[in-house]
Amino acid sequence: MRSDALASLIPALTTLGGQRVWSLIISVLGDLAQETGSFIEGPALSAIMAEMDVKPEAVRVALHRLRNDGWITSEKSGRTSKHSLTPHRRAETLEAARRIYAEPKDMSGDWHILLTDAGGGNIPGRIGSLGYVSLTAQVYIGSGNAPATGDAMILRSQTVPDWLKAQLTREDLKTDYRQLYEILTEIDEKLPEGTPLVALEVAVLRCLIVHNWRRLVLKHADLPAALYTSDWKEHACRARVSVLLKRFPKPSLADLTE
Amino acid sequence: MRSDALASLIPALTTLGGQRVWSLIISVLGDLAQETGSFIEGPALSAIMAEMDVKPEAVRVALHRLRNDGWITSEKSGRTSKHSLTPHRRAETLEAARRIYAEPKDMSGDWHILLTDAGGGNIPGRIGSLGYVSLTAQVYIGSGNAPATGDAMILRSQTVPDWLKAQLTREDLKTDYRQLYEILTEIDEKLPEGTPLVALEVAVLRCLIVHNWRRLVLKHADLPAALYTSDWKEHACRARVSVLLKRFPKPSLADLTE
Repeated sequence: MRSDALASLIPALTTLGGQRVWSLIISVLGDLAQETGSFIEGPALSAIMAEMDVKPEAVRVALHRLRNDGWITSEKSGRTSKHSLTPHRRAETLEAARRIYAEPKDMSGDWHILLTDAGGGNIPGRIGSLGYVSLTAQVYIGSGNAPATGDAMILRSQTVPDWLKAQLTREDLKTDYRQLYEILTEIDEKLPEGTPLVALEVAVLRCLIVHNWRRLVLKHADLPAALYTSDWKEHACRARVSVLLKRFPKPSLADLTE
Repeated sequence: MRSDALASLIPALTTLGGQRVWSLIISVLGDLAQETGSFIEGPALSAIMAEMDVKPEAVRVALHRLRNDGWITSEKSGRTSKHSLTPHRRAETLEAARRIYAEPKDMSGDWHILLTDAGGGNIPGRIGSLGYVSLTAQVYIGSGNAPATGDAMILRSQTVPDWLKAQLTREDLKTDYRQLYEILTEIDEKLPEGTPLVALEVAVLRCLIVHNWRRLVLKHADLPAALYTSDWKEHACRARVSVLLKRFPKPSLADLTE
């Protein structure tokens, strides 16, 4: 690690919670080898993981598990392994990526409430996958304008009562977002625009940002900030993530093992 | 009874259901002696009840029960009794009268849905008295624009799905309204504008119309026609009731025993 500033940030980023090695590897692949046909070579992955203080043996065990669980395939090319997401997991990763990488301007500020029929059949199932939050029996809240949701009644309101904000604001995630926001703010200050980082450093930094962000944002539906209490930092985190990933764009994979 | 047309209508009106004698007497008092200080004299009441084929003994028993239950007070003035609503029941009757006698143009075509807090305290109680219909846990529908309902969230929709209309349309009342509508239509045809009826006949006709109408309309919240299936005749009944009560205005009490 050449950048002392980055080196000083890594412990905070790796101790934020949820740093399973196999999950970190998925974050690396999801960030750097998302496109069909793309892969990451063994030495590049090893170099990235080493910068996060993950032991080679732990990487080997995690790669074995990911192959067994159908997450990745590994191909030998001479002495070098090429790791890539399986088609099924790649599709899931792309789906998640839309939510992880979306900029604040891509997120809807609109929202609506759905009232479904008591015998609404498979509507609640579809509602789950569409990212609605259940408010009470037959009632769901979701972002956006008015999706095609079959027979459900689409309801709107001019205001959001405090009790609803309190109901939607999960205390556990609120703390996690606040901690992430503090670290992202520190990164923003210590690694300002123009900071010279080599490809490997950028890969490590991006992986840790994406990893900690996706761990939180994929745990709940996307709802506009207006539906949360004012101390909910999700939207502030997205703004920071967005700025930092633009400031340090994806490195070329070939540069990683230079 | 001088009017054969009216005489032919009375059996249908008195057999529509729910014709308890004490309840008929309340309809008479509510229609003819609603104002503070007003009363109906024993002979006038007897004459009205006789036209509905109610036996004098049954009237005596019902009056006794109404006095015991705090509905009416009876005062002797010489040999004549004067029956009037008690202040408490008169207040209730006036409250109900607003809904019974309102013309179609007085009824709101607007509606809204309320979402209450899970721990909404006494809100559901207030909601009950305001005339809301419960749709599911914490969710109520009511007529009008946006009442003061504390913390509840006011929701609106552009459309009413068929399942909601079906849920709000009570099958038992639908049949009752259809039968009442048929009789009101028959009255409208057999007793057109200008039909000469004496005061007693008008009193009997009004009492039977009001009685059968209030028996249904006070069983449920006032909601606009847009929230019901198209075969729900409540609003059509209100229009007919309104026309008929205007066509045959309240007679002077003094004329009843002429």
